Amino acid sequence: MKYSISPVNGKTYEIPDDNYNNKALYDFIEANKEKKKIVIQGLGFVGAVMSIVCADSDENYAVIGVDLADERNYWKIGNINDGVFPVIADDPQIKTYFENSKEKNNFFATHDSYVYSLADVIIIDINLDVKKKSDNAGNLISFDVDMNPFKRAVKTIGQNCKDDVLILVETTVPPGTCSKLVKPVIQNELSKRKMSSNKIKIGHSYERVMPGPNYVDSIKNFYRVYSGIDEKSAQQTESFLKSIISTKKYPLTRLGNTNATEMAKVLENSYRAMNIAFAVEWSRFAEESGVNLYEVVNAIRMRPTHSNLMYPGIGVGGYCLTKDPLLASWSKINHFSSIDGLAQSETGVKINDKMPHYAFDFMIKAFDLHSLSDKKILLLGVSYRSDVGDTRYSPVEPFYLNCINHNAMVDMHDPYVKYWEEINIEISQDLDEKLDMIWDIIVFSAAHSQYKNSNVINKICKMSNVKILDTMGILEQKDITEMNKNNKVKVLGRGDI
Amino acid sequence: MKYSISPVNGKTYEIPDDNYNNKALYDFIEANKEKKKIVIQGLGFVGAVMSIVCADSDENYAVIGVDLADERNYWKIGNINDGVFPVIADDPQIKTYFENSKEKNNFFATHDSYVYSLADVIIIDINLDVKKKSDNAGNLISFDVDMNPFKRAVKTIGQNCKDDVLILVETTVPPGTCSKLVKPVIQNELSKRKMSSNKIKIGHSYERVMPGPNYVDSIKNFYRVYSGIDEKSAQQTESFLKSIISTKKYPLTRLGNTNATEMAKVLENSYRAMNIAFAVEWSRFAEESGVNLYEVVNAIRMRPTHSNLMYPGIGVGGYCLTKDPLLASWSKINHFSSIDGLAQSETGVKINDKMPHYAFDFMIKAFDLHSLSDKKILLLGVSYRSDVGDTRYSPVEPFYLNCINHNAMVDMHDPYVKYWEEINIEISQDLDEKLDMIWDIIVFSAAHSQYKNSNVINKICKMSNVKILDTMGILEQKDITEMNKNNKVKVLGRGDI
Repeated sequence: MKYSISPVNGKTYEIPDDNYNNKALYDFIEANKEKKKIVIQGLGFVGAVMSIVCADSDENYAVIGVDLADERNYWKIGNINDGVFPVIADDPQIKTYFENSKEKNNFFATHDSYVYSLADVIIIDINLDVKKKSDNAGNLISFDVDMNPFKRAVKTIGQNCKDDVLILVETTVPPGTCSKLVKPVIQNELSKRKMSSNKIKIGHSYERVMPGPNYVDSIKNFYRVYSGIDEKSAQQTESFLKSIISTKKYPLTRLGNTNATEMAKVLENSYRAMNIAFAVEWSRFAEESGVNLYEVVNAIRMRPTHSNLMYPGIGVGGYCLTKDPLLASWSKINHFSSIDGLAQSETGVKINDKMPHYAFDFMIKAFDLHSLSDKKILLLGVSYRSDVGDTRYSPVEPFYLNCINHNAMVDMHDPYVKYWEEINIEISQDLDEKLDMIWDIIVFSAAHSQYKNSNVINKICKMSNVKILDTMGILEQKDITEMNKNNKVKVLGRGDI
Repeated sequence: MKYSISPVNGKTYEIPDDNYNNKALYDFIEANKEKKKIVIQGLGFVGAVMSIVCADSDENYAVIGVDLADERNYWKIGNINDGVFPVIADDPQIKTYFENSKEKNNFFATHDSYVYSLADVIIIDINLDVKKKSDNAGNLISFDVDMNPFKRAVKTIGQNCKDDVLILVETTVPPGTCSKLVKPVIQNELSKRKMSSNKIKIGHSYERVMPGPNYVDSIKNFYRVYSGIDEKSAQQTESFLKSIISTKKYPLTRLGNTNATEMAKVLENSYRAMNIAFAVEWSRFAEESGVNLYEVVNAIRMRPTHSNLMYPGIGVGGYCLTKDPLLASWSKINHFSSIDGLAQSETGVKINDKMPHYAFDFMIKAFDLHSLSDKKILLLGVSYRSDVGDTRYSPVEPFYLNCINHNAMVDMHDPYVKYWEEINIEISQDLDEKLDMIWDIIVFSAAHSQYKNSNVINKICKMSNVKILDTMGILEQKDITEMNKNNKVKVLGRGDI
């Protein structure tokens, strides 16, 4: 017997075998038999919130979330059916939406592929990972995309779905995926089942989900771009999106084909990743030239054409910006094209990947540390995003590992992260307790609002002989001046202190 | 006897020797003896407009513009003193400001370095070039910056100026230049003349001049960033800028030191160059994938964080974006720093440099042209910027040269360029005449408003068997559909037609 443990509430779920008791599922189906059915494949950050937004629609849909019956995923199904939302979220709307769906009994989760056969709409919200190979200094050596897990998931749909279902792909995919993979795989499976292969509708509309205080709104109240493999697919995708998104306020944009929307998603994330990389490069220059890059960026941002200039930081994290620029390159190299990858976008990823390593080196150099052995280091924040508990590909991870590998004694705090999955370690939520202890180095490694609180700042000011590294530019000049009386402050991207 | 010919009005000026007749200069000085004197070094795109904006100040300055007595520059002096503004400008304010300065008799031009000795403020507006070495395909092989001409110009100031003058550097320079070059050179010359070397004030405030319809406003009504080598320099720079710029509406921003403002300028231009390069890369991807990149960019620009996304085009031109990112790299490599150049910014320049070559290759491929021999090609626009007659480093130049080298018969039109200096050729202003002729290929190579006029579009629609290449995305879908009836249209960045 295998088990899957929820990192959200710690509950252990037994992973079912083929002869599992499906009574609850059948009860749900029976109770919702009059309703249109939406089946959502993948119950991660996107699928979970997408499910409750769909369940909230005026169309009165029945929503069935599907994930895999394995150690990594089955707990999401268990949690949802137990009334526990599978993502720790700061957004109060999550609770409201989720509780409403429970009250209306129109959201259920299962691992059972049978449910695809009931669906009027199937939404693909599974992951598609890029495998990066890097050296110890964070240099990206090579990367690859394994399309097989995605292909298997699509095949499962094709083996079960109705021939006229609308399949809406929301996963970020290498451009070309809907037309060159999803469509032929589904049509092939339909043909094997002696079903018509030209009634199927396949749409693509990428999400712009942001875990955090606007988690629900990042689906429900935000712009969407969509397309279909043909006119009827595009039309049905449009009708469906209108039933779940506030499209009057946030009008939809239809693009010419699925390649275009797939490209749009990776393009917009590549743009952001590149702009961050740009700030990173210049922050090093600023540090060396006695310049405060924050001041420079603020001055330039006054120009409307330059208002999107980014600030530097400890690095880029999260599921999207760390890989999406490579998805496009991979697509160019492997899928469609005889020409080279996207140099500008790849350069962006490469620079960003090195940021946490650079922040570590900066710390050693700025504080003239000859050894980290037995040095007590406190990391304030392990999440990749401010005021959000998301540690996926967090840049704090390589920074932490560098400290550990240099024999430092590292402790962490994060108000939003109870358990750091990637490192397999529990994280303290008690900041006061941590600040009462003795530290050699305190690192501001995330820009959570809590760390800007005057009580926190004052407490650090009163310490003595502590080295303070601000990787996120969250300390104001007056804080730095005050702290520098008893301690020593260094800020990434500032050469003027 | 040597001569300098004005490309603006064709007038030939004799270049004076040391014994020239300086009566006009002395008359001007005598007439303005009560006024504060501003001497502007360099009468190019920046210095010329800066001069008339200063002459317009309520402070009632006398402005003396200085340039070199050589073939390339002396005509500017001649033109100004003849009442001809040395830049062909679309902005009606230029005429008003220039005529006012003539009426008030407070703007004079000379090559005589003596005038630096009269100055209360000296503004450095000379060029500083980056020497790029590239192969025939536009690949940047290496680059270097020769600081010597700039150093000589600064030295001339130091050999003549008062010891308490304010020297305001507006030239785009490698970060570090004011503190590491301007200051020591000036102080050294003052010491040689047995004068105090610590009363001098040196400020840096880069211009954001845009030749075009808002030429004057790009100085007078726009944000400025400034700094000084010390507190009194910064203060005097601030006071001076307030006397010429509408700083109530466009507040000044002071930065901590001259490195910071020097860096700000190259940073903001690098940012723009990089964003253009980004669009270029993706336009190639779009062309190959059957995607309309313009449509994709418009969809993404709806996100406030992505509103600055650029469109593709034939390339990047002008004096700034083609070199400024390299100035910073050069500074890092040679001046201050032991670490590498700026990869992201250099990549941007490299990609942009290849754009016109790519546009040429695209033309060959998209129209399946086996040879260009004796093909008649009309280029619509040779300026690097829409509705402006500025051909400096225009991307149309390598495109043109590629056509010529492939034995095509190339003709050009540009409403803003009478004489294409870099190619040494006269340019027609008569579009109707050109469109009455027979062409094999018409290339939209600049996005001048005139080319979007329906008469122009209709005339091209009525032609037959012409290949039309739109490198700037100026044709609308309905124009393309109409033109495609008798002709064949291809647009850079669009794979869907």
